[in-house]
Amino acid sequence: MNAQCKSIVLTGSEPTLECSIVEQPELQPGEVLVEILCCTICGSDLHTFQGTRSTPCPTILGHEMVGRVVDMHPEYPTVDFLERPVKVGDRITWSVAVSCKDCEYCRRGLTQKCSRLFKYGHQKLSDANYLSGGLASHCHLAKGTTLFKVPESLPDLIASPANCATATVMAAFRLAGDVKNRSVLILGAGMLGVTASAVAHSKGAESIFITDIDASRLKQSLEFGANHTLLVKKEQPLHAEIQHLTQGRGVDFVFDMTGVPEVIESGLEATAIGGTMILVGSVYPARPVQFPAENIVRRLIRLEGIHNYIDLDLANALNFLERHQKTYPFHRLCEQTFSLEDVSAAFAESANRRSYRVAVLPNLEA
Amino acid sequence: MNAQCKSIVLTGSEPTLECSIVEQPELQPGEVLVEILCCTICGSDLHTFQGTRSTPCPTILGHEMVGRVVDMHPEYPTVDFLERPVKVGDRITWSVAVSCKDCEYCRRGLTQKCSRLFKYGHQKLSDANYLSGGLASHCHLAKGTTLFKVPESLPDLIASPANCATATVMAAFRLAGDVKNRSVLILGAGMLGVTASAVAHSKGAESIFITDIDASRLKQSLEFGANHTLLVKKEQPLHAEIQHLTQGRGVDFVFDMTGVPEVIESGLEATAIGGTMILVGSVYPARPVQFPAENIVRRLIRLEGIHNYIDLDLANALNFLERHQKTYPFHRLCEQTFSLEDVSAAFAESANRRSYRVAVLPNLEA
Repeated sequence: MNAQCKSIVLTGSEPTLECSIVEQPELQPGEVLVEILCCTICGSDLHTFQGTRSTPCPTILGHEMVGRVVDMHPEYPTVDFLERPVKVGDRITWSVAVSCKDCEYCRRGLTQKCSRLFKYGHQKLSDANYLSGGLASHCHLAKGTTLFKVPESLPDLIASPANCATATVMAAFRLAGDVKNRSVLILGAGMLGVTASAVAHSKGAESIFITDIDASRLKQSLEFGANHTLLVKKEQPLHAEIQHLTQGRGVDFVFDMTGVPEVIESGLEATAIGGTMILVGSVYPARPVQFPAENIVRRLIRLEGIHNYIDLDLANALNFLERHQKTYPFHRLCEQTFSLEDVSAAFAESANRRSYRVAVLPNLEA
Repeated sequence: MNAQCKSIVLTGSEPTLECSIVEQPELQPGEVLVEILCCTICGSDLHTFQGTRSTPCPTILGHEMVGRVVDMHPEYPTVDFLERPVKVGDRITWSVAVSCKDCEYCRRGLTQKCSRLFKYGHQKLSDANYLSGGLASHCHLAKGTTLFKVPESLPDLIASPANCATATVMAAFRLAGDVKNRSVLILGAGMLGVTASAVAHSKGAESIFITDIDASRLKQSLEFGANHTLLVKKEQPLHAEIQHLTQGRGVDFVFDMTGVPEVIESGLEATAIGGTMILVGSVYPARPVQFPAENIVRRLIRLEGIHNYIDLDLANALNFLERHQKTYPFHRLCEQTFSLEDVSAAFAESANRRSYRVAVLPNLEA
């Protein structure tokens, strides 16, 4: 075991990445140290790196990750979320948010809004934890982190997005309810969109419409269960086409992954009587969405927002990926890998949107 | 039994009320004839009468009503929604909407959106049914109408609003879920608002905030379980005060009875993390509501519209009124009564908003 750890620290108001060599932390009761095997770069990492999203600095970005346990405090509870024993050497992932399980929000099942929240890849570094992000050789897991053993058959590159993208999609479907034999519209065919398409398909949705501004992403989404693709120009309304395709009925479930007000407004217009719209993508400032409340009332529409997820969603995400990694080509969503030293190149590749995800592998030779 | 019936028919694009004497209808299989005991004037009746809401004419307005069975076709199913026998002489009410129970919407439980909907007080009169509204001596109940025996202890004036106002409030609470020990904000202290306050109180809500532009309605609402009243000026935001009163937490459940965009927007701002807003009042055209989708997402807010109700809600409404008519002063909500001949005076009284409801009693001597 190394006595030293390496991390890529984001500093300053003008975001700068700096390589840092630190001592391997001494664990407190309840803590675990993992060697990071893979960290995929999420859209929010990119936004923070580009300065369009602010975060307390210094910090280590990266929260979609898989690691191998290298040290555990003896007083650490030794089972994962599914009560499976966890020991040194196990390959695991963990919930992006650590919650107290005791505050008002936790007791109401909104653990992602815990009043004492600790969030990997989003924390300001401190003496108590200076390895809280994925762009590092190691991650120092705080007491109370929910662990999940990663199924052996699941490669790191497929498992890594589970604890953000896939789990968030699972949370969105948990809110939505049963989509079997129902029509689904997915707004945005990025990582969350194609994952949602696969989930809807695996759950027996009758028809799956998916929209994007990128024709190649739409083409890819056909392999993730989508039946109908709609190429839209930015801000071009799509509900007229959806209404036409559904004989004026609209769709039962709409999932917005874009956060673009024009897209959300059009999605609401495309929602059937008694339909549901789940908002997922609105995690950045945008102009207010406008909607006629009379439509919501007369059409009995439900609109619900989801942000992050609860532990159960991550369990479902790993289970879904394990069962369906061959049904849908999840291996094609993350094919570009970079070493920790090349993290700037990884962000540049992430920014050009050719890949759904790029991965940083700390053990990859630079 | 009279061989003739009297009705007040709304005609023309410039709404005009005309008294009409018609033959008592001959019943077809599945049909029932009731003598109307009481019809209360709902806000939507008033809007139609005033011409701010359009309806196919000629029609008979009035859908909140209680009647006594005077004739039943022998092939009519002789039980009500709760399987109690129904016979000539029974005092009943019935679901405002008659649904086919067979179309896609009915099968999904959205009977109020049935594709073959028949709606009392909203139908264009026809040869097959020229007595479909409450402002008449009799109402001709269509095949498939769900009947409800009115509890004996419940006076006509309290029971009459059950099949619109009270049932709609019950539907809103059905969507909302459990309000026990939670905070509730009711926007608008009219008939629906004070009823919602009583329902929230009876279900054990921890605190009940209610807003209105009318101080006397707010005062009355204190007797319907509300703990905190907020007098607002038209379009004045209220969320700052709610946030102050809740120590920045917001409220768990918001019920909008106003349909006013400014009020809905402020109500959304007052909604707690993980909270729910039920839209009820938006049944007339208004400017679009504006909301930041990021708030809905980050605060995990659910927004849902309800229009009308399903049969179960009316059963719950009658049960609620029977059990709680003494707990809350429901008898004070409808104290003004008019004869059928004085229906214009009834509309004038309804329009001045001094009363929550005014009643037309066809048997009252003019």
